[in-house]
Formats: sequence, structure tokens, C-alpha cells
Amino acid sequence: MTDWLTHRDCEAARARVAPAIHRTPLLSFRTLGDATGTIAFLKCENLQKTGSFKVRGALNAIAVLSDVERARGVVTISAGNHAQAVAWAARRAGARAVVVMPSGASRSKVAAAIGYGAEVVLHGNAAEAFREARRRADEDGLTFLHPFDAAPVIAGHASTGLELAEDLPGDATIVVPVGGGGQIAGIAGALAATGRLGGRGGPGMRVFGVEPEGAPSMRRSLNEGHAAHLDATDTIADGLAPPMAGALNFRYVAEFVEDVALVSDAEILSAMRLLMSRAKLVVEPSGAAAVAALMHGRVPVSAGERVVALVTGGNVDGDLLAKALRDGTPWP
Amino acid sequence: MTDWLTHRDCEAARARVAPAIHRTPLLSFRTLGDATGTIAFLKCENLQKTGSFKVRGALNAIAVLSDVERARGVVTISAGNHAQAVAWAARRAGARAVVVMPSGASRSKVAAAIGYGAEVVLHGNAAEAFREARRRADEDGLTFLHPFDAAPVIAGHASTGLELAEDLPGDATIVVPVGGGGQIAGIAGALAATGRLGGRGGPGMRVFGVEPEGAPSMRRSLNEGHAAHLDATDTIADGLAPPMAGALNFRYVAEFVEDVALVSDAEILSAMRLLMSRAKLVVEPSGAAAVAALMHGRVPVSAGERVVALVTGGNVDGDLLAKALRDGTPWP
Repeated sequence: MTDWLTHRDCEAARARVAPAIHRTPLLSFRTLGDATGTIAFLKCENLQKTGSFKVRGALNAIAVLSDVERARGVVTISAGNHAQAVAWAARRAGARAVVVMPSGASRSKVAAAIGYGAEVVLHGNAAEAFREARRRADEDGLTFLHPFDAAPVIAGHASTGLELAEDLPGDATIVVPVGGGGQIAGIAGALAATGRLGGRGGPGMRVFGVEPEGAPSMRRSLNEGHAAHLDATDTIADGLAPPMAGALNFRYVAEFVEDVALVSDAEILSAMRLLMSRAKLVVEPSGAAAVAALMHGRVPVSAGERVVALVTGGNVDGDLLAKALRDGTPWP
Repeated sequence: MTDWLTHRDCEAARARVAPAIHRTPLLSFRTLGDATGTIAFLKCENLQKTGSFKVRGALNAIAVLSDVERARGVVTISAGNHAQAVAWAARRAGARAVVVMPSGASRSKVAAAIGYGAEVVLHGNAAEAFREARRRADEDGLTFLHPFDAAPVIAGHASTGLELAEDLPGDATIVVPVGGGGQIAGIAGALAATGRLGGRGGPGMRVFGVEPEGAPSMRRSLNEGHAAHLDATDTIADGLAPPMAGALNFRYVAEFVEDVALVSDAEILSAMRLLMSRAKLVVEPSGAAAVAALMHGRVPVSAGERVVALVTGGNVDGDLLAKALRDGTPWP
């Protein structure tokens, strides 16, 4: 039995995080809508504090700690955006934050986490960094904050679901990039808790996930019926490449999400280019995955329906932006 | 005597344009605020319909035409953003639009104007294109829409002033890029009409203009005491390089604007880079001029005050974005 988020849980989490964050704009995106026969919108979490949606989960996770836990400090693991989010949220709460990042993490994301005040430890690959964060929690008395697979993180991301439910009056298809699955669990869970989620094929809001072909942990979890681990990942979308799906998140996805689609790195680059040229937004590869899926027909949509792509982050190095401008296939 | 905009004029224009456009977000921009000791915001007109603020003026100018004028059609002159705005607004109104663009206009802006349904005529340099548009108005019975120097255009841009007055409760310094001066006239005029504009040095909102060093038509107009023409312009900010300041706009600037500052092309490139890397926004050179002025201390600001940079457009070719990423000086 899973204790699903209640409407009250969602509102309580929102009350904790909303004063500190942006209610990000839901922008109409005519180019995508016209080319797909839909009314398309972008939920712009790239314009969120620290440049990604991750602050919602991090703020809530730190807010629900006990005073003793907060006084001892927290430790987490992240390839980037969650690192920045925890660093930023911990500083706001006056808490110590240790962030273990894989040695290959983007230099700009490392610098940003340090800039927000975290103690950054570079350590091994993603799996090794996970173990190192757990070890430091045990040895140093820090509270381990899971980057995605924890009820307070899901509840923090539920705030996005509440915003979408309020900003979209009727039915809609919501498309969400999936790494460990915390954001999609929160959004789908909030829509279910507020009675806005439609049944499969019925009226109401529907939620789809999108993963890179090179890191299909949730797709594989759905195929296998349990949260799957991946031996290796290979994608430019570093934020979507944790080596496993969250176990709790998988239960939310299995219960509330229609399906999880896959996109290629080339499709992601093309989406980044489109978002720069037509939506005037800088979006990192992970943040462009939902748009990529809609551009390439990976998510079933009906003529004239409202479709929302979550644009989850904008923390990307200049070289990769230049590469998307140069190599991204023009579309439509 | 100038008949300044009244509050009623501003609200009437807003009622005409608001249903068709975005109320663009006013985003806080912590990086700029921290480095300048202010609380900084960006008014994101790059996220406006057609990718620039110009639709506000174009929609209002077409809305106030008589039915006969609208049935005959309109002609205008533009290096880019106004062309797209008139094409888009005319199509909404079911009116024919002829747009004369200088031969050197950006190919993507030409393509966009055609895409929105305009008949595009490429003709000479900016001054020659102006004359050609006037000639076509006379010979073909089209109504000439001045790109910036006309009361209905100013009233359309006043809608931005009303939004700023509502979104900012107290005092603030508003920094606006200046080409022909239509937008700054509308914003300053609206703040004056609503009683929100402060006296020189007194409380209330203050408005500053920014021009490129290579196209200082309004700066020169203030120096000379009348709307000045420029023999030549030289700047990457194509939207800020008309060969003259608007005569009516100059009167608004002389009456209601604190001062007009100048920025270099290198400072504009650096601002474009900062906006991409930290604000996650794609901004064209003209649209980055106000941010450039604040970054480089060209506008006097007080510690802790609210400062708003108008980010006026995002219509920029990929090569120029790549150049800003490569050559723009990192800041702060």
C-alpha cells in the first residue's frame, strides 16, 4: 500500500515553498502548437530560482526536517541541478550542506553549487557518489536528502501540479521529463489528489513521461514491473541520467502516468534549438526532452487539445548551446 | 503644446491590445541585483508575441484605423521587429500589410514577416526604405504606419507602463532601450499619466533611456534640443538604429525621462551572454541594451532600490548568439 499524496499534503508543501520561489510562467508556444495541431504551452521552470525545478523539492525536504536535523546539516548527491537547489535551500534555512557530485559533473554546475554556499565533494561515477553521500551521512551525522525518491521531494514538486491545475481550466496533456521521477510523481500525484487527473482515455488531465533513449530507467521499470537500475547511461541530458528510477516514484508513475516515451539526443538538440530560436528560452538538454517528444510525435495528442511541455531547467554551458545552434536539426 | 497621453488614453489602448498579447513576466534577476546593489527585474518582452514589444504599438495603430483605412491596407518600414509586428497585427485584423525593409535586413526577420503574411519589399538603406514606404502609401492608397513616431504607437506601448505600475508597488528606476523612442515615450507617458512618475530626484518611478554609442539619435536630440537625424549608424543593435529620433517621442523624452545613456556593442554582447547564462533568456542585441547599461554603471542607481531593465526582443540569428557566447566578456 502506498500512502498517496493528499490534497492537504500538496497545499501544505506549497505553503512552505511558494514564498521562496517563482510561480513560473506558463507561456503559449504557437510554433509547437501549430505544427502539432494542438494548443501548446511551456511551463518555464528554467526561469525558476537556481535555473531549475529542483528547488521545489529541496526546499520542502529541508523545511520538514526537525530542528536538530537542520542544525546538524544535510548531505546529498547530484550531477548538478539538485546540488544547486539544496545548496540554495540550505543557505536560506541556515543549514550546512554537503553535496557529493560525480567527478565528471559540469564545471559550471559545480561552481554554482559552491557559489550558493555548499561544501562540494567530487567523487567517482554516479553510483559511487551515491555511496559516498550515504557514507558521509552515517559518519558525520548529516541527514541524507535523496535527490528524487522521497515523499517530501515529491510533495515539493506537487506545487507544480497545483499551479498547472489552476492555470489550465480544462483537460490537458502534461509532458514531463523523467530522471529519477520525483517531478512527474509530484505533478501526477497532485493532479490525482485534486481530482483533476483523467482516467486512462477519459476526460481530465493526462500525464506522460519522457526519457532519453540512453537512460530509460522508468521505461524499463514499467516494462519490468519494479523500479529498475541501469548498468550504464549514455545521453547529453545529464539531469535525466541517474542510474535508477526511484522506487516510490515508480509507484506513482505506474498508478497515475499514461506512459513514458523515449527521445534521442539528436531530437533533444533540435528541441533546444527550437526553444532558443522561437521561444527565446535557454534550456538545458534535460529540460528540452518534453518538447522534443512532442515535436517528434512520441506522445499521442488529439487535434485542438491543450498540451503542456515541462521545461525543467536552463543550466547549460555555452559550448552546448553553440552545438545545439550549429547541429540541431531545424524544425518544423 | 503637446497633448500628453491621459490615463484614459492608456487604458483605452490597453483594452485594445491586451486580449491579443501576453502580459509578459517581470522576473527578478538576482545576479544583476547583487552585483549592482539593487533589486533587479527584467520585463520580458522577448517572450511577447512575435518575439518583441513591437506588437503593442502595431496592434493599437491598426485598431484605431477607420474601417475604410483598414480595408485599403497599411504600409510600413522596418528593419525587423516592427515588420513582424505589423504583419501579425494586420493579419489578425484581416488587413493587407506591405512592409518595406532595408536590403540589408536580417534574413530571419524578413522570413518571419513573410511568414506572418506581409508583402515584403526590400529596398535600399533605412532612409531610402522610409521614402519608398511613403511613396507606396501615396500611390497605392495604403495607410502609412510610422514605426515609432505616432500617438497610437506611443499609446500601445503605454500598456507596458501600466503593467509596470501595477507590478511594482513603490519607487523604481525603469531602464528602456531607445531606437526611435516609441516605447520609452509610452512607458514614461503612462507613468506620468497615472501619477507614478517621480520628479527629478524625487520619489516615484524614474525612467532612463539607453542607446548604442553607434546610433545616439535621442542622446543627440537632447543635446541639441530638437529631434535629430543621424547621417550614419554603426551598431549590432539593428532595432536601435533608425536614422532619427521621433519628433513626438523626443518631446516625451525631454519632458518625462531622466537621461539617455550610451553603451558599446561589446557591452551589449556581454549582456547577451549574461542573459543567456544566468537569466536563461535569448535576447537580441537591441533587447540587451538596458541590461548592458546597468551592468556597466551607465545609469545612476541607489543601493537597495528596485531597478527594471526592459528586455525588448529576442529575434536574433544563431550566429550572433554563438558570437555572444564566444566573445561576450564574462560578468560580473
